Formats: sequence, structure tokens, C-alpha cells
Amino acid sequence: MKKRQTWFTEYQTDSLSLGLRIDDILASETTEFQDMLVAQTETFGRLLVLDGAVQTTDKDEFVYHEMITHVPLFMLDAPKKVAVIGGGDGGAIREILKHPTVDEAHLVEIDQKVVDAARKFFPAISVALDDPKAHVHYTDGIEWVRNARDFDVIVVDSTDPVGPAEGLFQADFYQSIARALTDQGILVAQSESPFLHQDLIRSMKEGMKTAFPYVTLYVAAIPTYPSGFWSFMMASKQPVKPADRARTASIATRYWTPAIQEAAFVLPRFVGELLQ
Amino acid sequence: MKKRQTWFTEYQTDSLSLGLRIDDILASETTEFQDMLVAQTETFGRLLVLDGAVQTTDKDEFVYHEMITHVPLFMLDAPKKVAVIGGGDGGAIREILKHPTVDEAHLVEIDQKVVDAARKFFPAISVALDDPKAHVHYTDGIEWVRNARDFDVIVVDSTDPVGPAEGLFQADFYQSIARALTDQGILVAQSESPFLHQDLIRSMKEGMKTAFPYVTLYVAAIPTYPSGFWSFMMASKQPVKPADRARTASIATRYWTPAIQEAAFVLPRFVGELLQ
Repeated sequence: MKKRQTWFTEYQTDSLSLGLRIDDILASETTEFQDMLVAQTETFGRLLVLDGAVQTTDKDEFVYHEMITHVPLFMLDAPKKVAVIGGGDGGAIREILKHPTVDEAHLVEIDQKVVDAARKFFPAISVALDDPKAHVHYTDGIEWVRNARDFDVIVVDSTDPVGPAEGLFQADFYQSIARALTDQGILVAQSESPFLHQDLIRSMKEGMKTAFPYVTLYVAAIPTYPSGFWSFMMASKQPVKPADRARTASIATRYWTPAIQEAAFVLPRFVGELLQ
Repeated sequence: MKKRQTWFTEYQTDSLSLGLRIDDILASETTEFQDMLVAQTETFGRLLVLDGAVQTTDKDEFVYHEMITHVPLFMLDAPKKVAVIGGGDGGAIREILKHPTVDEAHLVEIDQKVVDAARKFFPAISVALDDPKAHVHYTDGIEWVRNARDFDVIVVDSTDPVGPAEGLFQADFYQSIARALTDQGILVAQSESPFLHQDLIRSMKEGMKTAFPYVTLYVAAIPTYPSGFWSFMMASKQPVKPADRARTASIATRYWTPAIQEAAFVLPRFVGELLQ
């Protein structure tokens, strides 16, 4: 029997595409905010797509979720209060709650339908959303951050900078995050591909610099994101410090390690030059 | 005017594809050994395809060619004699000849048509093939290595382990390379994607271990290769040592840096576990 010839195709740019063979479409709807698709793929397990762009898959979500959370959290001695803006699949919350010092993990997702889909179709990713320490807010992240205070880490786990997430890449949002963080607090935002989105990386850095004296970048390999190579931009009011090696031993991970915590900041020459 | 709707599609596995919009097909022929395509793409400049698999593009070739050469060469004090098995585009030779101590760089390519296409369509990649220190041999790499001796570095810059390159992933080839290397000599071979080719990585390690006591792996981000995340397996008879920082300053690169030389060996947990 031949395999089913159904494919999901993301046009990552107008001249570059990623195709994933799918066995089934599990959900397909237009929410108040975006188009949403959930499908079962051959190679990457279940797939969540928003406005045509891959958000997460069962098989490679661990890279993104570990790297956007553990890297900033391990730079603090005892992070207690953490927020995730976006990230409705719950994967970032799952990783954050692996840190025993955290007693409040807030998820601020504008689109409840994404969280509903995550609970239904991605149980291993959304698993921690019912933890008593997890607080889910269905609201606009920009509004929510204006009233937030005393956070140790704020993670911007957004979609691409078009559509509902556009405001999450602007300087006034970063200024608002700076007010919501403690003096030692850390902002991390997904910052797209160093191969494909160089102008965005430069402009994010300019935006963060209006609110934070220290801005750095780190990288990870994520197969289903454009180019397979992804960056995370980190900003803080004080210099960040290396992870506490003793504390790191307690966290179960598949990509992150104490050595990756440092190596992720070692940038290829062309990536380092983007920040100069 | 709408853009031309012509795409090159690589089926990287039977359920995963990469699509590149193309402006023109510059060459398309069946050589004695394989099917060959050269096309002009929108995103990655010129593209060389062998048997349906992307080999190199103008825009991301620098990553692969720098990482497969500078990493082993900088581990030796004064590499003099280097061979590349495969690599008919000439990119590895170009990088090797940036090291002033090298006085012989041998390219051993079974398919002269690949070298001809590189000279014609990829002048920036094949630029060093006419250097007096470059020696091009159109012959089977397995045969050639049997009679080779006293090499400081042998680079296996092969296609995927199906078709003409199959023998380049076998234990007896690695044993033959061990005889061709000096006591301090280093073998490096491209070893595919840690996300998609885990069985191959394990079996290459077993094969190399029959000939070399020291086998390690390092990684780099290459957008047009499957998953965007690529590995290189390194083998030696003696422990390898860190790069000489003074010497590294002299080499012009776009991906490789002295810090990448070390960070490339820091593996994500799931990759490190492949080698255990």
C-alpha cells in the first residue's frame, strides 16, 4: 500500500518551503485571532500550525521549550515568579515548573483556542498547565505586562512578528517588560533565524537596548523552524552570570545541559556580527 | 508580475521535504555515477544537487566547508598534507589552503563532472582548485586511500550513504584511512543529522572505533541540509588537543571562530547520548 500523499507545506519565505507528510488532520479552525491547524505527521508526531507557520511538534518541541526557559532561569539563584507571554501550548510552563524555587508561573495567551487545542491534542506539552503554581490568563500580553511587577523572568514565546504578535517585537513592549522585572530580572524572547531574519534580529536588539543595558543572543537547533537554526534574545538590567552548576543537576532535559548553557552563547562569526 | 512557480524539492526522508524556488535550471545531466542538477535559487543562490540531495549552495556552503576543515586542521601544530575524499565542489580545498603550513591538498573525487560543474557554475567555491598546492584525482576514494601515506588530515566530504558514497561509511575504509594518517593524524567525516540519522551516527562510530581509539562528534547549523543541524565525526589515534589560539587569528571565516572550535563539541544531551 502506498503512503497517503497528503502534505502540510509551510512557505517559510516566499522562496523556501518545508513539507511534512501528514496522516490526519485533527483540527482546523479559524479562531478570533488566527488560523489554527493540528495534524498528525509521520516524522515529527503531532504538529500545531498558526497562520501557516509551524509552532510546535511532538518530536522537536523539547529544544525550543528547554532553551527558552532553562537558560534564563539558571542565571538566577532562586527564580520565584516567571511569566510566559504567548506560548499557549504550555511547553515553556512545563519546563519552568521543573525549577523547584518557582512558585508562580503565569501564562499570558491571547487565544484560548490554542490552549484548548494543546490540552486536547498535546498532553505531553500542556501537562503542567493544571499545576497549582500555573496561572493561565487569556488576555493581551501587552496589556497584562503593563500591570505586572516583580517578575524574575519574562519569556516572550511569540509567533512570528506579523499578525497578533507584531506588538511583541516593539520597543515600548520591552520598556514595559523592564518595569515588570526585578533589578536582577531577565527578559528572553524568541528572535527567529540568524540565517533568514537578520533585519529583525538587529531591530529587536535596538528595541531592547532602549530598555536594557545588557542584550545578548544565544542559539539552538530546531528542525521544524525556518533554516533549522533559531535564536533567543536575552536582556537584563545587570550583567547575567553563569549557571549555578550544583543546581542544574536536578533538571531532566533532552537538549539543555550545563555545558550547553554556556556554549549556546558562542555564536558563529556571522551571527555575532549581527549584534555589533 | 508574479514570481516564477518553479521549485526544486528534496525529499529529505519519505515524509519530510525542503523546497527552494528556482529562477533557472543551469545544468541537468546524468553522469557516469549520479544524477546532477545545477539551479539558480531565490534564497540560497546557486544550488548543486546530486541524486536529488542538496550538496551545496552559494549562501550556506561556508558553514559546511569551514567546519569540516578548520576544526581538524587547527588541532595540529603544522598540518602539511591533507586529503579530501569526495568534495568535488572544491570548497573544502579552498578552506584547507587558507592554512599556510599546508603544502599538499589532494582532492579525490570519483565524478569529474562534479568538478567541471563546480568550475563553471560555482567559481567562488572551486576557486582554489588551480592553486599549485591542490592536486585533483578523478578516482575512487577507497582505492586511492589504500596507497596513501603520511597524511595529517583526511576529510571525508561524501554524499549520503546510498549510491556511490556507500563504501565511504564502512569500517574497512576507516581502517584504510588509519593507515594513511600519521600517528597524530585526524580523520573527519560528515556524519549527517543528529535528528534524522541516529542509526547511521551510531554505526559510523562503531566503524571508526575498529580503527581509532578516539572518536568524537561536533555539530554545526546548515539550513539546506535535512533538519538544518549537521554532525561531523572525528577520529584519531592519539587524543586531540585544543586549537592553537595564536595561529587561528590568521584565517578569514564567516562561521568558524576560535570559540566555535570548542563550542561545536558541546553536544545537546540527546546527541551526546548517541555516542554512549
